Amino acid sequence: MGIDECEWCNLTAKDKQWLLYETVFWDIYLADKQDYVGRCILVLKRHCDSFMHLEDDEWQDLKFVIDITEKIMREVLGAELCNWSCLMNDFYKKSNPNPHLHIHMRPRYRKPVQLGQKLFYDSEFGHHYDNQKQVQISAEEMEIVFGKLRAAFDKL
Amino acid sequence: MGIDECEWCNLTAKDKQWLLYETVFWDIYLADKQDYVGRCILVLKRHCDSFMHLEDDEWQDLKFVIDITEKIMREVLGAELCNWSCLMNDFYKKSNPNPHLHIHMRPRYRKPVQLGQKLFYDSEFGHHYDNQKQVQISAEEMEIVFGKLRAAFDKL
Repeated sequence: MGIDECEWCNLTAKDKQWLLYETVFWDIYLADKQDYVGRCILVLKRHCDSFMHLEDDEWQDLKFVIDITEKIMREVLGAELCNWSCLMNDFYKKSNPNPHLHIHMRPRYRKPVQLGQKLFYDSEFGHHYDNQKQVQISAEEMEIVFGKLRAAFDKL
Repeated sequence: MGIDECEWCNLTAKDKQWLLYETVFWDIYLADKQDYVGRCILVLKRHCDSFMHLEDDEWQDLKFVIDITEKIMREVLGAELCNWSCLMNDFYKKSNPNPHLHIHMRPRYRKPVQLGQKLFYDSEFGHHYDNQKQVQISAEEMEIVFGKLRAAFDKL
């Protein structure tokens, strides 16, 4: 088990269209599932199963990646905070798991996010994110969010 | 707002009874809510609102704290992985939040955890943790878990 059998090591061009930014060690993607507007996934560029096995420079770089991501979520989308989680549960559905380290980031909003004429509400603000929450935005709105975020990352 | 108004900066002796280990910058507590056996909370010893405002040495030390915690959960309790999250939502129920950085760690188990003659099941293994899950263990069993973990941390 390893790189060849890992879909996170072999992302398709379709997956990579949502790449917002990359550093030496990490990729920042806008998540497919926009349940919370701006939701991202930070993906380590190397196959590695857990925080425990990260190298020091990968851990240092992760701090930079978290900092720029949260700053941009606050400035561009008006997030009041970000929820961070490293869970990895899905990999363990298999008896022989092959986990690839990634981190979920959900921006959380006290005030609704405005995209064009539409408002998007974080109705659970102040509470745990709703893991069953439905996707809030259309494909076109996702393109708008991606464009705004990408422009902010490009300015770094 | 700051240290004086922060209950995480002013933990009681009753709270501190569950301290498993401390480093220069972080405290590791066994969580009150043992929904997943061995659940811990990592608490920064300084008042700070987010990862963004952590100092470099605090971030470095966090990696060490994560590493030892996951290693001990695997070795002592048989966890197959750990779920990590930094959410901070509760603080934002207030209009003037005063967040204090802390990280939740839930150990996850493919096989049941045995405490004495009782078995404890992670029936959601391979799936997101159940945020509504009830506490699984008695006060006496929590003491046993604390004792086992504390002994392992003491050996570091």
